[in-house]
Amino acid sequence: MTERLLVDYLLTCQPGEDALTKAEDIALEQTVELPADCVPESIREHLLGRVERLAPLSDRRYQCTISFDADLVGGELTQLLNTLFGNISLKDGIRVTDIRWPDGVLKAIGGPAHGIAGIRQATGVAQGQALLCTALKPVGLDASALAERAYRFALGGMDIIKDDHGVANQRQAPFVQRLAACQQAVERANGETGGNSLYFPNATAPWPLLEQRLAAAREAGCKGVLISPWITGLDAMRWARERFGLILMAHPALTGSYFRPEHGLSPELLLGDLFRLAGADASVYPNTGGRFGFSLSTCEAINHRLRYPLGALRAAAPTPGGGMDATRAPGWLEQYGTDTILLIGGSLYQQGDLTRATAALRESIGRGAR
Amino acid sequence: MTERLLVDYLLTCQPGEDALTKAEDIALEQTVELPADCVPESIREHLLGRVERLAPLSDRRYQCTISFDADLVGGELTQLLNTLFGNISLKDGIRVTDIRWPDGVLKAIGGPAHGIAGIRQATGVAQGQALLCTALKPVGLDASALAERAYRFALGGMDIIKDDHGVANQRQAPFVQRLAACQQAVERANGETGGNSLYFPNATAPWPLLEQRLAAAREAGCKGVLISPWITGLDAMRWARERFGLILMAHPALTGSYFRPEHGLSPELLLGDLFRLAGADASVYPNTGGRFGFSLSTCEAINHRLRYPLGALRAAAPTPGGGMDATRAPGWLEQYGTDTILLIGGSLYQQGDLTRATAALRESIGRGAR
Repeated sequence: MTERLLVDYLLTCQPGEDALTKAEDIALEQTVELPADCVPESIREHLLGRVERLAPLSDRRYQCTISFDADLVGGELTQLLNTLFGNISLKDGIRVTDIRWPDGVLKAIGGPAHGIAGIRQATGVAQGQALLCTALKPVGLDASALAERAYRFALGGMDIIKDDHGVANQRQAPFVQRLAACQQAVERANGETGGNSLYFPNATAPWPLLEQRLAAAREAGCKGVLISPWITGLDAMRWARERFGLILMAHPALTGSYFRPEHGLSPELLLGDLFRLAGADASVYPNTGGRFGFSLSTCEAINHRLRYPLGALRAAAPTPGGGMDATRAPGWLEQYGTDTILLIGGSLYQQGDLTRATAALRESIGRGAR
Repeated sequence: MTERLLVDYLLTCQPGEDALTKAEDIALEQTVELPADCVPESIREHLLGRVERLAPLSDRRYQCTISFDADLVGGELTQLLNTLFGNISLKDGIRVTDIRWPDGVLKAIGGPAHGIAGIRQATGVAQGQALLCTALKPVGLDASALAERAYRFALGGMDIIKDDHGVANQRQAPFVQRLAACQQAVERANGETGGNSLYFPNATAPWPLLEQRLAAAREAGCKGVLISPWITGLDAMRWARERFGLILMAHPALTGSYFRPEHGLSPELLLGDLFRLAGADASVYPNTGGRFGFSLSTCEAINHRLRYPLGALRAAAPTPGGGMDATRAPGWLEQYGTDTILLIGGSLYQQGDLTRATAALRESIGRGAR
């Protein structure tokens, strides 16, 4: 008996579209890709997807569960993505809403190397206290100007100072220069304050530069990096986890198209389960009430999926951001709990004095001035 | 003066949402990610996105053009994806509908190493004649059963016999065994017929297996591979182009979520321009009238984008598939022209005798029996 991967779908049928036919079509499309009468009997019994449940909701919507033999995934993250939503991404009215993970798949793909506990260890922030993160921006500043900002944030006691995810390798601040300048600036501030701020450069890059940037970050003494796994390929993050030992903060760039109400994958599965499986120690997502449109319940579902017991996987750190107002930080922690990294950028820049703004933010969440 | 990347967006506003504010928000979000008053003057003049045009359509829809300094992309495909749709993928009512490419970006990122001309050379199919492709399936067959199918197709004169994109490294037919068995089977058939069929194994895989599979495919004598670049990361395909010299046939798995009417990227940009830039010699897409929902005009737009003059980039081969009926092949070629690869699978399997079905298909498009 092999294990089976159970996937729940919300189906939205067109007028005249039959829900069972739609469900059976998913089972075929995601496995054998052939009309059922062309599939040998033994394959029909095992590798063909199996419609386990189909329950009507309202308005031509149905909840459906399809199970897949874990052999189909074969322990490879790329094929897992393909099984979950490869070809059916090209069809309408299909949204993946839940996944029950077989132990074999969890073990094969892994999870965070550090998780929230590892991030606490690296930053020295005790359990029961939330962590703070900010972004170095805007793109277009030179390396020394970005490093000056990093220094100011670190003086104020910012835990993690990451590159903005759009700061890549532009000629105004090439990666190598920026890495050296910002890491030194943060170390200098730590030396002055006795603090423990970390700089996470943006390692997102084409091959083989991704590898070079990860190696350079480790070499420079960084304990972690920012990566946009939907841009590099999700598996590149998993690979980075195994190769470099760095803390991986995942950014959601390019994922948003999957989050349509009737189509795609629910955000808590993609930014929660899947990013966590692929090794994200922290997962950045757009907090409700900021510049993006996630609801509070979506944010809480992502938090849950990053932290809930899932095989032997470490819990990852929810990292809400995207236009968060610094004055609302205490409220968000009350809502989300302290196993959270608050990512606050623009609202600190608007205050002008980055050190003072950071110190005030720390105080507001009971972290004390540095 | 640096060059600028011009991107057209279709904006769909919510009631009460202002179109100019929405356009300016994209310009900020995709570049500086800060409120305008926090952006230094020099950056506001250059790296900040610039709203070049905003024209009302009907029903709260607007056509808008935003230009980006090519420096923002910095010649890296990962940052190009981020600039086009990274953060705004997380916002509603934004669809990228056209891109005008600066020469610098085209040169930096490249394009197909072989293109349709190279595929003709490898298969020996003369200009003016269309090419045929099929898929080895279903997943679950062992390597020798898949190889037997490959042999039968090759005997009938199939030009390209590719793995089904869901055939990865399942224990029933591990990649290494399948590669050897299928490549030998196709070579054996070629030896018998004097033909020139090619086997393209599915190289889509996690790192560093992707590299191993590409190397193994070349070593085994394959002239090309299948790859699902949205699963590996688009840049992994670009990297494969530079490293291995193989023909790259790109599969659209996982891309479908970007193709919503009011959100995402238009299919001809993603499966056309972007796949072509990233090195796809052939781009598989779901043909209209098959198992998926693309319209005829979308298919023709993809064909156009794969072939139109674009800097020094080679033309790539449109590869319509996804439930094509073999009897309709002549009609599709009349519609799409002969610089096309027709991907036909299930419709041949349903006929039972794969050699005879392939030979009949060849004859139907004027290729003659082998």
